[in-house]
Amino acid sequence: MFTLSKKESRVPPTCLGPASTQGMDSNYPDGLERECSGKPDQKLPELYGVGDPIPTFSSDGSHLSSRGRIIKWFWDSAEEGYRTYHMDEYDEDKNPSGIINLGTSENKLCFDLLSRRLSQSDMLQVKPALLQYPDWRGHLFLREEVARFLSFYCRSPVPLKPENVVVLNGCASLFSALATVLCEAGEAFLIPAPYYGAITQHTCLYGNVRLVSVYLESEVTGLDTRPFQLTVQKLEMALQGAKSEGVKVKGLILISPQNPLGDIYPPEELQEYLEFAKRHELHVVVDEVYMLSVFEESVGYHSVLSLERLPDPQRTHVMWGTSKDFGMSGLRFGTLYTENQDVATAVASLCRYHGLSGLVQYQMAQLLQDRDWIDQVYLLENHARLKAAHAYVSGELKALGVPFLRRGAGFFIWVDLRKYLPKVTFEEEMLLWRRFLDNKVLLTFGKAFQCKEPGWFRLVFSDQAHRLRLGMQRIRQVLKGTSQVAEDPPSCQTQELRGQHT
Amino acid sequence: MFTLSKKESRVPPTCLGPASTQGMDSNYPDGLERECSGKPDQKLPELYGVGDPIPTFSSDGSHLSSRGRIIKWFWDSAEEGYRTYHMDEYDEDKNPSGIINLGTSENKLCFDLLSRRLSQSDMLQVKPALLQYPDWRGHLFLREEVARFLSFYCRSPVPLKPENVVVLNGCASLFSALATVLCEAGEAFLIPAPYYGAITQHTCLYGNVRLVSVYLESEVTGLDTRPFQLTVQKLEMALQGAKSEGVKVKGLILISPQNPLGDIYPPEELQEYLEFAKRHELHVVVDEVYMLSVFEESVGYHSVLSLERLPDPQRTHVMWGTSKDFGMSGLRFGTLYTENQDVATAVASLCRYHGLSGLVQYQMAQLLQDRDWIDQVYLLENHARLKAAHAYVSGELKALGVPFLRRGAGFFIWVDLRKYLPKVTFEEEMLLWRRFLDNKVLLTFGKAFQCKEPGWFRLVFSDQAHRLRLGMQRIRQVLKGTSQVAEDPPSCQTQELRGQHT
Repeated sequence: MFTLSKKESRVPPTCLGPASTQGMDSNYPDGLERECSGKPDQKLPELYGVGDPIPTFSSDGSHLSSRGRIIKWFWDSAEEGYRTYHMDEYDEDKNPSGIINLGTSENKLCFDLLSRRLSQSDMLQVKPALLQYPDWRGHLFLREEVARFLSFYCRSPVPLKPENVVVLNGCASLFSALATVLCEAGEAFLIPAPYYGAITQHTCLYGNVRLVSVYLESEVTGLDTRPFQLTVQKLEMALQGAKSEGVKVKGLILISPQNPLGDIYPPEELQEYLEFAKRHELHVVVDEVYMLSVFEESVGYHSVLSLERLPDPQRTHVMWGTSKDFGMSGLRFGTLYTENQDVATAVASLCRYHGLSGLVQYQMAQLLQDRDWIDQVYLLENHARLKAAHAYVSGELKALGVPFLRRGAGFFIWVDLRKYLPKVTFEEEMLLWRRFLDNKVLLTFGKAFQCKEPGWFRLVFSDQAHRLRLGMQRIRQVLKGTSQVAEDPPSCQTQELRGQHT
Repeated sequence: MFTLSKKESRVPPTCLGPASTQGMDSNYPDGLERECSGKPDQKLPELYGVGDPIPTFSSDGSHLSSRGRIIKWFWDSAEEGYRTYHMDEYDEDKNPSGIINLGTSENKLCFDLLSRRLSQSDMLQVKPALLQYPDWRGHLFLREEVARFLSFYCRSPVPLKPENVVVLNGCASLFSALATVLCEAGEAFLIPAPYYGAITQHTCLYGNVRLVSVYLESEVTGLDTRPFQLTVQKLEMALQGAKSEGVKVKGLILISPQNPLGDIYPPEELQEYLEFAKRHELHVVVDEVYMLSVFEESVGYHSVLSLERLPDPQRTHVMWGTSKDFGMSGLRFGTLYTENQDVATAVASLCRYHGLSGLVQYQMAQLLQDRDWIDQVYLLENHARLKAAHAYVSGELKALGVPFLRRGAGFFIWVDLRKYLPKVTFEEEMLLWRRFLDNKVLLTFGKAFQCKEPGWFRLVFSDQAHRLRLGMQRIRQVLKGTSQVAEDPPSCQTQELRGQHT
C-alpha cells in the first residue's frame, strides 16, 4: 500500500527545496534522498500551480491530479521511518526487541495525569448546542477560556480578547490556513533553519506557499553569543536572497521555544525580529506550542504576547495548542491569537475544514479553566518529569562524549554527531540514521529540519524511563561501533561546557 | 466585525458563478446579490490562482492575500442570514418573538436520544494511544467499525474493507480534500442543480476547483418522469458546454438522497450516470450523508455501494458522515470509502489538516457498533419523528395551496413559491426571503442552490413541534399578506398530487 512506483519516485526538485517531513519528522525514500541531498543551496523550486503541472507527476495510473500526486508523495516519503517503527513498535512485554521511538516529539510522561483528569465526570457534557453546527471560530465559551488562559500564562499586559481567538483542530491546520489567507500561491515565509520540518507541508500542501530558510550555524562567530543564533543581519540577507531569486516573501515564522534547538528568544531579540518584519511589511507567525514546556526554573520564558507593545499588531499572529504543552497530540486542539480581525475572519472561514467536535471544545474549556489542576498537579509534575528525563539523557550524552545543546525547554536535545560521519555529507548522516534504525532506535536527522550542517540529530527525551534507558543503550551501541572520525573534544567536562554553547 | 467594506463588496463575477452558501445555506449581502442575480448563465468564472490575483480583491487594508480576501468574502456574505438569526434566536421562554430557523439542514428531533447514548460511561475512554499522534487515515479500530457499518447499512454485496476507509472531521473537509487531489486548480466537477450550495466553497476555497451546474427543470417533459430529473442527456450537454468554454471537467458529484430535492436515485439510473462517467473518464463523488434519513417505509434506498458491480471502481468515491443521519453536525465526523488506494492515501495525507480527536474516534466506534441502539432505539424513533414532522409541514403547505415535492427522505421540503413572485426573478425571490426573515422565520431561497428557476425555497422540517408550528404560522402570515400573482392550482388535492410531481 505504501510502496512508491518508479514513476512516482521521480520527484522533481521542485518539492524538495522545502523538505518533506511530517508528524514523525521522518525521511525521504532512498532515491529521493539521493536526489535531494547535497543540494541544500539549490535554487528555490517552482511549486505546482495553475497551468504548471509537473510532468513527472502527471502521467501515472493513479487517477490523481498532479498536485494530488505531490500530496501523496509527501505521505509516502514521510512514512518510511514511521512505517518501519509501526511495523515493529517496542513493547516491554510483547516486543522487547522492537523499535524505540525517540524521533516523534511527543510527551509520553504524563498520560497518567491526563487520563485521570480527562476521565472525570465533568468532561462528558452532551448539550444540544455542542451537537449542532458551531460558530466556526470556535464556541464562545471556549474562546473566552482561551483568552483568559493565554492572558495569564503569556503574561499579557492587558487581558486578551475572545474575539481575537480562533480555535481549530491543531496548529498544522493553522499553518495551512494562515499560509493560504496571507500569501498568494508561490509566495513564501522566511523561517530560521533548523526548524520543525513538517511546517513545509503545512504551508505547501493546500496553500502552495514555500519556506525560505534563514540558515543558522553552529559556530559562534562575530556578534553571535550562542550557536545557531538568529540575527537581524541573517534575516536581512535571507530576505534579499529570496528577492534576488524572484521569490516574494510575505512573512516570517518564529518558533519559541524553538524546535529542534530548544532556544527561547529573549524579549529584546524578539523585539528586533518584529521590528525587522515591520520594516519590510512582513507578517510574523509566532509558534509558541512549547511555551509551558520550559522545565528549567532558571530559564525565563517570554511570550510575544507579553511584550508591552507589538511593533505591528495587525501583522502579528500567535499560535498555541495542547499537543505539546498538554501532551495530547491526538486531541487536535490549536488556537490562533491575532488582533487582525480580517485575518481572524478569513481563518475562521477555512475552519469549516478544520473544525473540532463540540464535545472536545467543551472538554478543552473545562481543562483550561482548571488552574488548580494545571498549576498544582500537571505543570509541577510534568516539569519535574521532563527535567529528570532530560537530566538522564544529557548525562548519557556527556558520558559518551557527544556534544549537544543544553537547553531547558521542549522535549528534545539537539545533538552533534558530526564526529561520527566519515565524510560530513547528508548521505553519511542518512547512513548513520539508518544504523540507529537498524539497531531499533528511531531518531530524526538534521536534514529533516533543513539544517545546513550534516551530522546533527534531534533526540526526544520526553519518554518513560525504561524506554529511554533502552533507547540510549542502543544509541551507545551504534556510536561505539562507529569509528569516530573527527577528533574527540578534550574531556567530558569540556563537552558539557561546549554543550552549553553548541 | 462582519461588515463588508465597500471595496470588498465589489466581488468580481468570478466568485459568483459557483454561488456562495455555507452550513446555513445563506445569502449574499445586498450589493452582491444584485451583482449575482440574473446572471445564471454567465460565463464560468476565472478563479483566483498563481499570477492571477483579482484586482478588486488586492488593494484593501486587510493585509490578506487576494485569495484570503475571497475566503473572507465567503464568510461575510454567507453570514447574513446566519448572523441575523443568531442575534435574535427564538427561545420559547426568553425570546418568543425571535427568529425560527427553518433554513439550516439539521435534525433537532433526537437530541434526547443522542444525549442519553453519548453520556453513557462507555463513551469516555482515555487511553494513551488516543492522546498520541494518530494514523491520519483514522484509527484502525474506527475504520474497521466504519467498514462493518457501511457494509451493513449500504447492503454491499461483499464486506467493505477498512483499508478503503479514511476518516476525517466532516464531509465539508472531504469535498475539499477530494477536489484538491483529483483536480488541478481551475478544473471542475459537474453537479446537478439545484444542489446543496456549500459544496461550492468546499471545492473552491482551498482547492480552487469550480462546479459546473447540470441544470434541472421543474417541468416534466420528454423522457423525464419526475420534476428536476437528472438524465444522461443533461449530463452530456453540460459536459459538452463546459468543454466548449474551455473548462476541464474531472468528475461528477451525485447526492443521494438529494439535497434540496429529497430525491433518491433508483439503481438503474445511478448505473447510467456511473456509465456516463466511465465513458468520459470522470471521477464520481457520491455523497450519501442522508442515507439513513429515509423515513417513508415505501421509499427504497439504494446506496451506490449496494451495486453488484461499479462500472469504474477506481474512480468512484463515496462519502458518509454522522452530521445528518445521527443529527450531530457539531461532532465533525465524516468518512470516505474508495477502492482507489492512491486517492485514499492522498486524502489521508491531507488529513493532517482534517483530523479529529482520538477521544471522538473512540466515541464514534462505540456508537457505530451499537446496532441494538441504532436499530431498535435511534432509527426507529428518528424515522417516526421525521415522518410526523414532515406530515405536519406538508399538511400545512397543502392547506395553504402551496405546491411542493413530496419525498420521503432528508430533513427538508422543496417548495414552489413562484406564484408569490410579482415577477419571476431572483430579485423578487430575495425580496420574498427577506419578508420571511422580517417576519422572524429563516428559510433558504433557491438561488443558494443554483436553482435556475426563481421562486423555489427549501424548508427544513426536522425541528421540534412548537417551533415548527410557530414557523409555519409565520410563513402563512407572509404568504397571506403577499398578493398571489400566478393562478391558483384548482384544488388542494391537485396541489398534493401536483406536489408529488413538482
